[in-house]
Amino acid sequence: MTAERVFVGTRARTSGAEQDDINALLVERARRGLTVVRLKGGDPFVFGRGAEECEALQAAGVPFHVVPGVTSAIAVPAAAGIPVTHRQVASAFAVVTGHECDGVSSLDWEALARVPTLVVLMGLSALPEITARLLEHGVPPDTPAAVIASGTLPAQRTVVGTLATLAAEVAEEGLEPPATVVVGEVVRLRERLSAETVGLTHPARGLVSQV
Amino acid sequence: MTAERVFVGTRARTSGAEQDDINALLVERARRGLTVVRLKGGDPFVFGRGAEECEALQAAGVPFHVVPGVTSAIAVPAAAGIPVTHRQVASAFAVVTGHECDGVSSLDWEALARVPTLVVLMGLSALPEITARLLEHGVPPDTPAAVIASGTLPAQRTVVGTLATLAAEVAEEGLEPPATVVVGEVVRLRERLSAETVGLTHPARGLVSQV
Repeated sequence: MTAERVFVGTRARTSGAEQDDINALLVERARRGLTVVRLKGGDPFVFGRGAEECEALQAAGVPFHVVPGVTSAIAVPAAAGIPVTHRQVASAFAVVTGHECDGVSSLDWEALARVPTLVVLMGLSALPEITARLLEHGVPPDTPAAVIASGTLPAQRTVVGTLATLAAEVAEEGLEPPATVVVGEVVRLRERLSAETVGLTHPARGLVSQV
Repeated sequence: MTAERVFVGTRARTSGAEQDDINALLVERARRGLTVVRLKGGDPFVFGRGAEECEALQAAGVPFHVVPGVTSAIAVPAAAGIPVTHRQVASAFAVVTGHECDGVSSLDWEALARVPTLVVLMGLSALPEITARLLEHGVPPDTPAAVIASGTLPAQRTVVGTLATLAAEVAEEGLEPPATVVVGEVVRLRERLSAETVGLTHPARGLVSQV
């Protein structure tokens, strides 16, 4: 068995043009009669443009299968000892993208501010704006919040602070993308489910300032 | 290699007492020096009481690892051709539990009504109340909505309607738990990503009333 491997990933955001190129590539190879695997990190339907690729395939009459994945929105907080829900602490969670172009400014921050756990994917560069909006809409400044960079990888680093302090602390520590932001009381559970003593699958190796 | 297998799952909700029994069982077997696998459907930190079990283990000094799973909140809609996000349609999604005791009445429905995609796990019995609350908080009655019962299983059935009609349609079709509810414009994408012509991994085998 041999396979052609085409790398189409990006560290930063993919522009629309590049997404069109990916769609065209999938269709072109499939039409040649090849079996094509489009491999993505995380889940293809969680800000992964999976639906757009499915639409392109559908429009071209190419049959496809979708295999859901383990999303970083849940698995990366877990890797840092933070559950997104907890019966006594959070009975709902919301997931948004922090990519400016995908809608930091278009999101309904007033509504998101009222969801017990908020997870922001790709939220590092917009972190000062995101925390400011949540504070503006009444989330208490001492709400625990965390950023996990390179989650589940050997380079994983976690910074824990409060909504008021997080952006400054993250800047000071020089965290780099990819990163996942979690805001809510569930972040406090990290102390009780601490990786230090019990060892989660991917113990946080980074910086912890106690909340 | 041999393993003792203890079934602790339930179809309906687990009471607090039963959860205590599960916690005690994990600790007791671990203290005997056994390696214990606590296997759950979905993700342990998404309304799975995983955090509570971790706390019990932590309190007992039992080391543990958490392995995140594929959550039904994302995978079950996907199995019915519904992506929870889409660049042009939904830049955020929220996940809640429909279990009365876990908080249908305590949830902030006014805020949840403003999130583009809402996923309700275990929401079948409370469906009339859930749809009523969303309507009350201004979600348009013609918003597409779906219930997927036994998602990803051979018995998978999907009912698609609108927020105004869904509860009655689901009752008429006699859907049974486990079921996942999805509300939002993403449900409409099901037509474009339809399982009928292209075959998702687990094509919806059920009832489809077009939206």
